Amino acid sequence: MKTIDVCLTPELLHLYSLNDKTVVVVDILRATSCMVTAFAHGAERIIPIANQEECNQMRLRGYITSGERDGKKVAGFDKGNSPFEYMGTEVKGKKIAFTTTNGTLAIEKSKQAREIIIGSFLNLSSVTKHLLFSHNNILVVCAGWKGKINLEDSLFAGALVEKLKNHIEQDCDSPLVAQHLYNLAKDNMVDFLKGSSHVKRLNRLSIEKDIEFCLTPDQYTVVPRLVNNELLC
Amino acid sequence: MKTIDVCLTPELLHLYSLNDKTVVVVDILRATSCMVTAFAHGAERIIPIANQEECNQMRLRGYITSGERDGKKVAGFDKGNSPFEYMGTEVKGKKIAFTTTNGTLAIEKSKQAREIIIGSFLNLSSVTKHLLFSHNNILVVCAGWKGKINLEDSLFAGALVEKLKNHIEQDCDSPLVAQHLYNLAKDNMVDFLKGSSHVKRLNRLSIEKDIEFCLTPDQYTVVPRLVNNELLC
Repeated sequence: MKTIDVCLTPELLHLYSLNDKTVVVVDILRATSCMVTAFAHGAERIIPIANQEECNQMRLRGYITSGERDGKKVAGFDKGNSPFEYMGTEVKGKKIAFTTTNGTLAIEKSKQAREIIIGSFLNLSSVTKHLLFSHNNILVVCAGWKGKINLEDSLFAGALVEKLKNHIEQDCDSPLVAQHLYNLAKDNMVDFLKGSSHVKRLNRLSIEKDIEFCLTPDQYTVVPRLVNNELLC
Repeated sequence: MKTIDVCLTPELLHLYSLNDKTVVVVDILRATSCMVTAFAHGAERIIPIANQEECNQMRLRGYITSGERDGKKVAGFDKGNSPFEYMGTEVKGKKIAFTTTNGTLAIEKSKQAREIIIGSFLNLSSVTKHLLFSHNNILVVCAGWKGKINLEDSLFAGALVEKLKNHIEQDCDSPLVAQHLYNLAKDNMVDFLKGSSHVKRLNRLSIEKDIEFCLTPDQYTVVPRLVNNELLC
């Protein structure tokens, strides 16, 4: 039977073997939620980039610049980190260079994996289906917050574990922890997350609407996948 | 207000500042449970040692040798890692050199802290009281399993967070995660832990009695404390 494991922060990635895995990178608030939204609205490709300078240079090659640091839009960039900026004609047919505090770093650090896909609540069922049909073992890589774990990414990992539980064996205790948390939270995730440090941080930025949207399952069916350092759909 | 944070594995310790903290090191199955039991039964001192060779050398200085690797007693050592080996005349007045897979490493890595104490369910209330009376911020350091998180140490961290919640502010999401888990598990921790990887590993070693004992709160009132690289009470 295939296995599923959960790496609760990229700081622990060195403990996991990646070369037999499909890695699901998740940064619910808000990088991977934005990426999924952009592809659902027709973005052509997204290049995830760990540093701001490189991101700026991609402008010369026809890319929109996107991203945040500490939850806020980078000065001079075209777009920030709200999924509502990645809808409609804003992104249709566009190429996007994307940098964030945690999410793009998680992708960068996972590059040894056999396959990397992008997960969020917005495409939860499609990601689940993709994992069911693949032969690879699974590792969910939570982007966390500056190396530490966070609640929202752990909940998404738990949602995947819960949905796959009858088909896939768990490795170690992290999947179990995530699954317990998800089952505790699933009936009202917005309320459950109100105590979390990241949501408190984001509430100071007045983005309640973003949070609610990012926690809504199955808005989209796209499953973005890393091919030669770029995300495609 | 003082703060409490939880480091779910020693692999994440570099993310935390230690010099203003009381660190509570916890390795429920079974290093810190053994240490607390030994002091409650009159052990004079315990020197935690990360490697087996050094542990053996302490024999020449009048120490009992104790510890495990991968859950099993080290060949040639006087004692293994069951709390029942650390009771009565077996340990009274004795000096113990102790090495384990995860617990002693967690102590070693925490040495920059202002204070290090030893926690387990067996001395939960006494540890709680000690933390309430201290002026230091608090960091619970879970020993985990070979760098990964484990359920039982996370539960103990959650128990401390729950008991201190009205007096001490939480830092980040790890305390919140631990607290949720503990509240979910507290009415029947033995059953709750049956799905955990470590308990499955230990069950193969037939130590159900150890597990039940290690999960029983408040058997003892001792609070072991690291002084010049040795634990005293």
